[in-house]
Amino acid sequence: MNDLNLQTGQILARVRQQRPLVHHITNFVVMNDTANVTLHIGALPVMAHAAEEVADMVRLAGALVLNPGTLTPDWVESMLIAGRAANERGIPIVLDPVGAGATPLRTEANRRLLGELQVTVVRGNAGEIGALVGAGGEVKGVESVGALDDPVAVARRVAREWGATVAMTGEHDIVTDGQRVMVVENGHRWLTTITGTGCMATTAVAAFAAVEPDPVVAAACALAYYGRAAELAAEEAKGPASFKVAFFDWLYNMTPEQAEQGARIRVESA
Amino acid sequence: MNDLNLQTGQILARVRQQRPLVHHITNFVVMNDTANVTLHIGALPVMAHAAEEVADMVRLAGALVLNPGTLTPDWVESMLIAGRAANERGIPIVLDPVGAGATPLRTEANRRLLGELQVTVVRGNAGEIGALVGAGGEVKGVESVGALDDPVAVARRVAREWGATVAMTGEHDIVTDGQRVMVVENGHRWLTTITGTGCMATTAVAAFAAVEPDPVVAAACALAYYGRAAELAAEEAKGPASFKVAFFDWLYNMTPEQAEQGARIRVESA
Amino acid sequence: MNDLNLQTGQILARVRQQRPLVHHITNFVVMNDTANVTLHIGALPVMAHAAEEVADMVRLAGALVLNPGTLTPDWVESMLIAGRAANERGIPIVLDPVGAGATPLRTEANRRLLGELQVTVVRGNAGEIGALVGAGGEVKGVESVGALDDPVAVARRVAREWGATVAMTGEHDIVTDGQRVMVVENGHRWLTTITGTGCMATTAVAAFAAVEPDPVVAAACALAYYGRAAELAAEEAKGPASFKVAFFDWLYNMTPEQAEQGARIRVESA
Repeated sequence: MNDLNLQTGQILARVRQQRPLVHHITNFVVMNDTANVTLHIGALPVMAHAAEEVADMVRLAGALVLNPGTLTPDWVESMLIAGRAANERGIPIVLDPVGAGATPLRTEANRRLLGELQVTVVRGNAGEIGALVGAGGEVKGVESVGALDDPVAVARRVAREWGATVAMTGEHDIVTDGQRVMVVENGHRWLTTITGTGCMATTAVAAFAAVEPDPVVAAACALAYYGRAAELAAEEAKGPASFKVAFFDWLYNMTPEQAEQGARIRVESA
Repeated sequence: MNDLNLQTGQILARVRQQRPLVHHITNFVVMNDTANVTLHIGALPVMAHAAEEVADMVRLAGALVLNPGTLTPDWVESMLIAGRAANERGIPIVLDPVGAGATPLRTEANRRLLGELQVTVVRGNAGEIGALVGAGGEVKGVESVGALDDPVAVARRVAREWGATVAMTGEHDIVTDGQRVMVVENGHRWLTTITGTGCMATTAVAAFAAVEPDPVVAAACALAYYGRAAELAAEEAKGPASFKVAFFDWLYNMTPEQAEQGARIRVESA
Repeated sequence: MNDLNLQTGQILARVRQQRPLVHHITNFVVMNDTANVTLHIGALPVMAHAAEEVADMVRLAGALVLNPGTLTPDWVESMLIAGRAANERGIPIVLDPVGAGATPLRTEANRRLLGELQVTVVRGNAGEIGALVGAGGEVKGVESVGALDDPVAVARRVAREWGATVAMTGEHDIVTDGQRVMVVENGHRWLTTITGTGCMATTAVAAFAAVEPDPVVAAACALAYYGRAAELAAEEAKGPASFKVAFFDWLYNMTPEQAEQGARIRVESA
């Protein structure tokens, strides 16, 4: 567990070699961006949400992303069908609880997904993660506003209560399975100026989880790689849109060596 | 009402300070772009369309965008639910009647929204605005083709008939509440080469209306700021996609001082 | 049939002069990109999927794109309604069988569209085209993996079996009506690094088919123009996102003369 920076490069290389399919049932806002990010990382994306096909589709996949960011009840049903098929086959599920805490529908839908499925990783901001255990934090639309008193404690509590690895992203990212705690120090404030950067981080976690069985390692390394690409892109950005172009280019261009050298993962609790 | 250029900068500064949530029920084509534009202006976006949550979501918002650009009847029902909740709380509604005039479904849906809700601002092109009162203009898909004989008269008539401020965008933008008429001379022809620039203008109007109670002032200033960003971006554009990147960067980078200095709003009727 | 390179420039010029409306019933992932590509080519896009309006909308159109990339059964019904209205009026239909072969729902939906409608052109990758006649090929999500033994023979068989021109895209593109066979040698590997490049190629084919009655000529010339833009863009690309910006800019900026000079269409069988 001490050489996580090294593993960041190794897992990235494995993604590019194995090209796992990442099946997304996700929101309308980010579908294009997350499909592109999946390709740039080196995996293959598919977006499919029909109840009639999600079980067939997920069986081809290396990981399943569930992101109820523009949810309606029928989409949640499709997520449950796909999630059960994934669980049966041991395919990792990464849940992005977009806007949990903002409305009862969102909070309940995310809790239901966590309750009925064996979710591998939950990736959200502090407000969303907090809402999964009623632990304060404030969500304005899909944005976390205000701060948690003790984010590590909340992340740990969510991990234990729902039996999933938690990846709480923010200025620093916290990854925990309730026991181990990793802090990822990569990232850049430009990520807050464009939409969907949380959803894209979730995609990165899913692509890494498709080839790395330890979800804490997969999530921490994915977020380090992702944050490092943002740091490199920031040097070229003139504004949020030129940042996004450079960021996507770097997700694609970053070599495993650059990922290893740039990752800054700190083991807070082993 | 004479210092509208000054107010353009002031309202932009207020948006960035207050960061209002702009709740969109909008079309699939532009969801990503309008979410990004909301962030670049300085506000917070949320896209939510489920009948089960729209009333909860809009209560957190500073403005509501209704854009039936890829409408189905159930989305129109959600728009009505959200719109009623917005009206109860005095939250401004900005309607974008995409493709009104192209099909009976679109024309009727937009008239129904205008009839059942108290809409604050209607932002559309000449053909769409004309279709709201059966005043000619031609809509090919979602594009206004042909010209109105007297666009100011049509805009005024729509404003009076539906009790809403009208923002009719085109080479010059006309903003009227039926009485006052403002003409915004900012903008650039590159805006016609990419999709969703009307929808994004609607988002700008909503963000400004969230912090400025006079809808005529909010709409005129938002369109001046928006058009000014296009003018600045045009200097860097090599084609429509590089224009879009530069345009989004300028929406974010423009200072209130630059907005004030660049705005060209003419009071045609006070 | 020998001067297809010349015709590439001529048809592009006709698109820009006539500005046909291209009605898309397409997937959520690419709606924004395909709307932009439609505009950059010189045509007008509209995205409309409601069963209540698709027949009205398609009557205004020069071509109809059917792309069940994120299909649910109700969308397929809308595609059938729109397709029948298009057939009645002789409006060309271009089908993009996204992910055919990946799940039974997708394979069946695409076969049903081909069976119940008179489709003008089917544009897909080798795996998808093969799946339409159960001819092997492998589809992982929406990606063709593995290779067909004899792609020309499969394309011809699909064309004959379904009575449609087939445009099978890949490193080289094959266009056939079952008899004539054209090979388009334009294109660039950067196209494989971003999502939706197949769907956007379909849009190009539809825009060309709206103004050119011979579907083999329309498809081959559209793909040559499209691939040429990718080649020109590749010279400026630093990664997939900067490639995409340059590619969209070149779709817009390419003159008919540049299209004619850059097209590389080979007549394999006249």
